[in-house]
Amino acid sequence: MTTAGTADAVAYDPARVVASLRTLAERTGGPDGSRRLCWTPEWLEARALFRESLATLPVEIETDEAGNLWAYLRGASDDMIVVGSHLDSVPKGGWLDGALGVMAGVELIRALAAEGVPPVTVAVVDWADEEGARFGRSLFGSAAVVGSLDTEAAAALVDKEGNKLPEVIGEHGISLDTIDGARTRLQHVKAYLEVHIEQGPVLEAKGLGICTVTGTKGIERERVIFLGQAAHSGTMPMKMRRDTFVAASRFAIALNEIGRRHDGVTTVGHAQCWPGVVTAVPGETRVTMDMRHIDKDALAAMFAEMQQAATDAAEAEGCTVSMEHIFRIPPMPFNPRLLDAARESVREVEGHDVELPSGALHDASEMAREVPTVMIFSSSIAGLSHTKEEDTPDEHLHMAVDAFHRTCRRAIDLVVAGEL
Amino acid sequence: MTTAGTADAVAYDPARVVASLRTLAERTGGPDGSRRLCWTPEWLEARALFRESLATLPVEIETDEAGNLWAYLRGASDDMIVVGSHLDSVPKGGWLDGALGVMAGVELIRALAAEGVPPVTVAVVDWADEEGARFGRSLFGSAAVVGSLDTEAAAALVDKEGNKLPEVIGEHGISLDTIDGARTRLQHVKAYLEVHIEQGPVLEAKGLGICTVTGTKGIERERVIFLGQAAHSGTMPMKMRRDTFVAASRFAIALNEIGRRHDGVTTVGHAQCWPGVVTAVPGETRVTMDMRHIDKDALAAMFAEMQQAATDAAEAEGCTVSMEHIFRIPPMPFNPRLLDAARESVREVEGHDVELPSGALHDASEMAREVPTVMIFSSSIAGLSHTKEEDTPDEHLHMAVDAFHRTCRRAIDLVVAGEL
Repeated sequence: MTTAGTADAVAYDPARVVASLRTLAERTGGPDGSRRLCWTPEWLEARALFRESLATLPVEIETDEAGNLWAYLRGASDDMIVVGSHLDSVPKGGWLDGALGVMAGVELIRALAAEGVPPVTVAVVDWADEEGARFGRSLFGSAAVVGSLDTEAAAALVDKEGNKLPEVIGEHGISLDTIDGARTRLQHVKAYLEVHIEQGPVLEAKGLGICTVTGTKGIERERVIFLGQAAHSGTMPMKMRRDTFVAASRFAIALNEIGRRHDGVTTVGHAQCWPGVVTAVPGETRVTMDMRHIDKDALAAMFAEMQQAATDAAEAEGCTVSMEHIFRIPPMPFNPRLLDAARESVREVEGHDVELPSGALHDASEMAREVPTVMIFSSSIAGLSHTKEEDTPDEHLHMAVDAFHRTCRRAIDLVVAGEL
Repeated sequence: MTTAGTADAVAYDPARVVASLRTLAERTGGPDGSRRLCWTPEWLEARALFRESLATLPVEIETDEAGNLWAYLRGASDDMIVVGSHLDSVPKGGWLDGALGVMAGVELIRALAAEGVPPVTVAVVDWADEEGARFGRSLFGSAAVVGSLDTEAAAALVDKEGNKLPEVIGEHGISLDTIDGARTRLQHVKAYLEVHIEQGPVLEAKGLGICTVTGTKGIERERVIFLGQAAHSGTMPMKMRRDTFVAASRFAIALNEIGRRHDGVTTVGHAQCWPGVVTAVPGETRVTMDMRHIDKDALAAMFAEMQQAATDAAEAEGCTVSMEHIFRIPPMPFNPRLLDAARESVREVEGHDVELPSGALHDASEMAREVPTVMIFSSSIAGLSHTKEEDTPDEHLHMAVDAFHRTCRRAIDLVVAGEL
């Protein structure tokens, strides 16, 4: 590794990234947390700051057909690496979720531009509506770019105030009819890199600031519906009951054991009983089931065991069970060469080989469908995110930006060497 | 037993009771079931039919300070037996719940009046608002008569349309300030008897039509609140979770086992998770707990085990638990002499000694606080009640009215003999 891209050769300033994040928080945050809900004036304000931070740099700024905002630093080759994340937040969100990756990308561009024309083209992207907090469709912009956005489903989405997604994005010049045009953005892209907060407690528990991310976990989500017989809680003897809440309870405990056994995660997040009164045995209980694993075979095994557990729980209480599909995404393992680059960078910065799969989805999950991808995590204090309490020690943010920066340099080297 | 009250000596017609119930159903029912919600015109219509059925009989009809409607057949003595139940129903209710006991009471009066002046005074009462379907306070009228109505709590009750209980009962000439006057109705009362449908599946499962009721079960109701830590369902490892739904599930299963172990009944009827979304580990889960037993020591043991089960379930998941009191009533065992009278009558009518505690509350639960009380059950098809599907084979209704009638005769004999 002796090209212009070598990590040690360049000046960059992680503190500037943190400073720009604080400015963003001042301009779009408040006592209740961040207010950068996508497709709102405050989100546009965040994008204005993003543009300002690029103002003195030799970049071409473009918005694509899906509302993603791109800044291109043209290189000696059309071959391209893309870095980025998202400026949109959930309502009352945190200051770092997404914004860290965008502002770290700006710093990368700044450092490269200071050195002249880079060997490859480098783009920083602010993905549109990663959170899906308004219409329930997350990864909107990145899914459009890789062609995995179901436009028919998107056309039917409505927010809490009754606004329709097509009309809201229409105000931003976006149409579902032409959104497929955003797919041309993938042309020449050889790698995608993203730095993000962990949004979980693992790094903090290990006493670490950063790590390599091996991929994003696959997810299975189902609504599990137990049907039995509603009855009077006083007059129906125990042994004649078909109690769906007891069945759902057996299922929840079995599901929890499945997650532990496979080193994945499994959750019942919502439960609803019918008739749902203190004096009635529930004749119907609905629970949501979310399970995640980084390995697709393990996820498939967990899913099969979950189905069996639901059947067993229902039968134990004389009930029946059915499922309604909610959501599915396969595991997205990251690129081996980029993973090696990230591992080397993390080792240089924090001196360890710790790596984690991401339990949360990211735009990287979509990009990994089509291009070599990798991510770097910083720690999250108490594992909190999507709340105003979301925070990370400055030192860890600095290390994350540093390791991300080094990984990007290595990615450039790999592209130049024709190895990506 | 050779007095005028002896069961075999008198003509009575159970078919007339069933016919009057069908007339009531025609006049106050419909395709959705019975519409005799208390304090409504349809409830008054039911009471009008009750008055019509008494029109040719030598009774004094009076409404007391709590809205209960009394018909007195004066006897040779002021000593009195009271029979009755309630004409009010839940919305879309069944045709038999309550009305059976009132109409059977009318038939008793008719049979006794045909014989001349009975040895003791006999009253049939239609209790006001047994169901509590509108304001959530069941056993309103009977509680007022025995002095167990909390008038302060009642004053604060509001129905779904925002109507206040004091205003609604005020339209019927009732005031919480003077309701205590209804307690004088207990004067001279030596026994209370009620015939009711089982509202459960036990008699049907035994292939029986009727049985003696040994008392009404005591009830404990609590809201059980588990507190843990809300977390991202993808990023929070299983072993770091404080998952309240898993804790609540452990509790529900343990509670179910407690009910089975003590031959009582235990139910979680309602559950609510917070934040309650598919992607979050629930940081708070609230469930309702209802437990019932006919024996107060067994109920106390069940309650203590329930508290321990809640603590154990919370601790197993790193959560805490607290309880909010909802409701409590002690077991109300019926009078031994009246129970013997009921047993003898059931034996005569259906030839067996089967007896059950009532899992549901009845006006008899209130009356049993103050006077010797007993009940007779008829079967319920499929155990259904509080729905238009509520039904009982005519043959079983006839047997129930017959056994009730015989029991009332025996009660009169016991009063005459000074044994009650």
